[in-house]
Amino acid sequence: MSKFFPSELIKAKRRGQTHTKEELEFLIQSYTRGELPDYQMSAWLMAVFFQGMTSEETALLTEQMLLSGSQLDFSDLPTPAVDKHSTGGVGDKTSLMLAPLVAAAGVFVPMIAGRGLGHTGGTLDKLEAIPGFSVNLGLREFAEQVRTVGAAIIGQTAEICPADKKIYALRDVTATVESLPLICASIMSKKLAEGIRGLVLDVKFGSGAFMKTVEDATALATGLIEIGKHRGVKVRALLTNMNQPLGRYVGNALEVEECLQILRQESTDICALNDLHDCQEVTLRLAGEMIWLGDKASDPEEGYAMAVDILKSGQALTAFEAMVARQGGDLKSLPKAQFRRTWKAPQAGYIKAVDVEKMGLAAIELGAGRLKVTDTIDPVAGLFVHRKPGDKVEAGDPIVTMFASSEKHFDSAEKTLAAAHEFSLNSVPQRELIERVLGAV
Amino acid sequence: MSKFFPSELIKAKRRGQTHTKEELEFLIQSYTRGELPDYQMSAWLMAVFFQGMTSEETALLTEQMLLSGSQLDFSDLPTPAVDKHSTGGVGDKTSLMLAPLVAAAGVFVPMIAGRGLGHTGGTLDKLEAIPGFSVNLGLREFAEQVRTVGAAIIGQTAEICPADKKIYALRDVTATVESLPLICASIMSKKLAEGIRGLVLDVKFGSGAFMKTVEDATALATGLIEIGKHRGVKVRALLTNMNQPLGRYVGNALEVEECLQILRQESTDICALNDLHDCQEVTLRLAGEMIWLGDKASDPEEGYAMAVDILKSGQALTAFEAMVARQGGDLKSLPKAQFRRTWKAPQAGYIKAVDVEKMGLAAIELGAGRLKVTDTIDPVAGLFVHRKPGDKVEAGDPIVTMFASSEKHFDSAEKTLAAAHEFSLNSVPQRELIERVLGAV
Repeated sequence: MSKFFPSELIKAKRRGQTHTKEELEFLIQSYTRGELPDYQMSAWLMAVFFQGMTSEETALLTEQMLLSGSQLDFSDLPTPAVDKHSTGGVGDKTSLMLAPLVAAAGVFVPMIAGRGLGHTGGTLDKLEAIPGFSVNLGLREFAEQVRTVGAAIIGQTAEICPADKKIYALRDVTATVESLPLICASIMSKKLAEGIRGLVLDVKFGSGAFMKTVEDATALATGLIEIGKHRGVKVRALLTNMNQPLGRYVGNALEVEECLQILRQESTDICALNDLHDCQEVTLRLAGEMIWLGDKASDPEEGYAMAVDILKSGQALTAFEAMVARQGGDLKSLPKAQFRRTWKAPQAGYIKAVDVEKMGLAAIELGAGRLKVTDTIDPVAGLFVHRKPGDKVEAGDPIVTMFASSEKHFDSAEKTLAAAHEFSLNSVPQRELIERVLGAV
Repeated sequence: MSKFFPSELIKAKRRGQTHTKEELEFLIQSYTRGELPDYQMSAWLMAVFFQGMTSEETALLTEQMLLSGSQLDFSDLPTPAVDKHSTGGVGDKTSLMLAPLVAAAGVFVPMIAGRGLGHTGGTLDKLEAIPGFSVNLGLREFAEQVRTVGAAIIGQTAEICPADKKIYALRDVTATVESLPLICASIMSKKLAEGIRGLVLDVKFGSGAFMKTVEDATALATGLIEIGKHRGVKVRALLTNMNQPLGRYVGNALEVEECLQILRQESTDICALNDLHDCQEVTLRLAGEMIWLGDKASDPEEGYAMAVDILKSGQALTAFEAMVARQGGDLKSLPKAQFRRTWKAPQAGYIKAVDVEKMGLAAIELGAGRLKVTDTIDPVAGLFVHRKPGDKVEAGDPIVTMFASSEKHFDSAEKTLAAAHEFSLNSVPQRELIERVLGAV
């Protein structure tokens, strides 16, 4: 591999040239082995930030990141293994329900999930709110559970895409995170390592998403779909609205509670089942796609109908309980917050818009998330959203209820919530929940 | 200084924002102290490559690089200390004559010079072709020689601009050399550290220069002049033609020999004094500027006339001999090449153009320079240029004579020389030697 000079490769990218497979192999594998120094990789990453990559190049980069570590192999299974990836939102707990629901349809779901950072939550943090639940299975144990239970959700392991782990840490401290090809390669390399043959993407747009506009979300979705094509993995992308939190609950144990309400199809004292419609609907739509990709339905619509049956019949709940039990979780002792306070409408009118990122930050103030990777999470902290954009309110109506282990952050979180809400005297049209579907047919 | 987050500063530059003095101070000083890691500096350098810097920012960067190390102080002298900087060319030996010539006019010249790398030669390598000559004086000894002899030429020391040294080494391996603000800051920080109040720039353009066009050379000159303004140092820039080697000799001992011929004003068996006209003229023009900047003439024209007198009267030779003797050099034992071979005109016609970079590389093949910093130099190797662009030749006329310690590289160097020359049947107009003068008035 010594035929390459790293500084010449950096210069080529700086000039906007396209790398060959061999060049990317050299850059990624020698960096992973510790031969290419950080300072050359970071200069290259910044050149990529400015000059971009072709879709072919991005696919080759993804492949090299994938090849830097272990890959799961489910090719002996009778039907394709399938997974879902969300680009991250506030209140997005669909993965918890999806994996068991789709498994109940006979689809194999090997899900390697992430933690929350910044204003969005993480699937692993939500699962860990369930006492005893372990996300730290080894790859062998993980694969075994997928084969026997149908679904498993674990955290990133050291064997999967070590190149991505190392490069991501470097991007984080060198201002090279916001690069579309680097984002696409990072996401897809980890997903492809799961040994899947189908992938559904939930690409969020709006004030609570990383991509603020439909256009940006489309660009990201398109980039991810292209990589899938290159690797022979069918990818579908739903562009979903993150101009309001998904569902009513934000926070780790609270979101598990919301999942249970949906899976049990029950209303509670605080929340009517109908209030959870958007979260349920996105889950069912994603499930329909996965069931189709997993060869258990002839199209996503049939998959959707199957998903509805599985949910209504209680099979999804049973599958969820089985998965949680297998990973050591005890749903009966889900923790609850000792303190709550409700922020009420300061005026009558309509909720015009919500800054969902700010709402996510209010939840973090209460302890529901982390701003730094070293922050710890309080599983019981979070929000219940009584009113959403477009809703009519009278002065004094409850808008958001805060939950926490102490009252000390209620004042500041309430200020953040107030700053996140915009009111209007006139009714306000709201956007569709699912804006667009892209990808394989 | 901990109020700055390096990744935020990198992101600011990535977005094209302008740094404050405090931000640049943090970046440069913490990097020099080893606190800011290489990988963040290299990402920042690449962001600077793409986004550039304002002239104010470039001046502030220069200042921080200057402040990272020691500075000489000649403010107690009766007249301003003055230096010259050349952006590098083939056959450019003017510094060797300039420093003593200008010193003979009463101007103090503290010259910290560089080594050759790539196709261009370096002043230090030329001086070291003189047996015994030492370029390794300490700063105290250097300053003392400037005060007593009037001129001294030494190499870069560890005390001068350590930030530049460290950043330059990093740029070299991260493809961030070709950035105008970084080039300007690197050049000017080292020159300003000499404690000078006047600086003449010889900014080369053409096939043998780093800047291929007059426009690029003008941009560089303008950048350097701006930094000087900001620091209260008068800067003048001559844009000179490097579409042919300067003078007739290329190579280290050979160029010292050419200097002696000019200083002695004598023709030799191989070369008429008139052949050295361009080299002599550029030297006198630069000298005129320096004498003016050193307050010994009321304008550059008067300085030029004084320089002519000093050269013709033999005072420049005496000053050169004094400087060389003071630094331990023995001009009488200047080494000579054992082997020579002449490449002759393959056809009759006019020399239309010369690729001067290729000529420089032919000299390197013979041993006159280095492609890597670890290469060693053969002081006697080099070229004598019989014919230049615009000259009429008959088939078989000598064009270039090669000199070396062995004959083994003559064949390949001759091929390089042949590839460097373009012939024409018609006469060809040639460019002015000095295209433009910019800067302080």
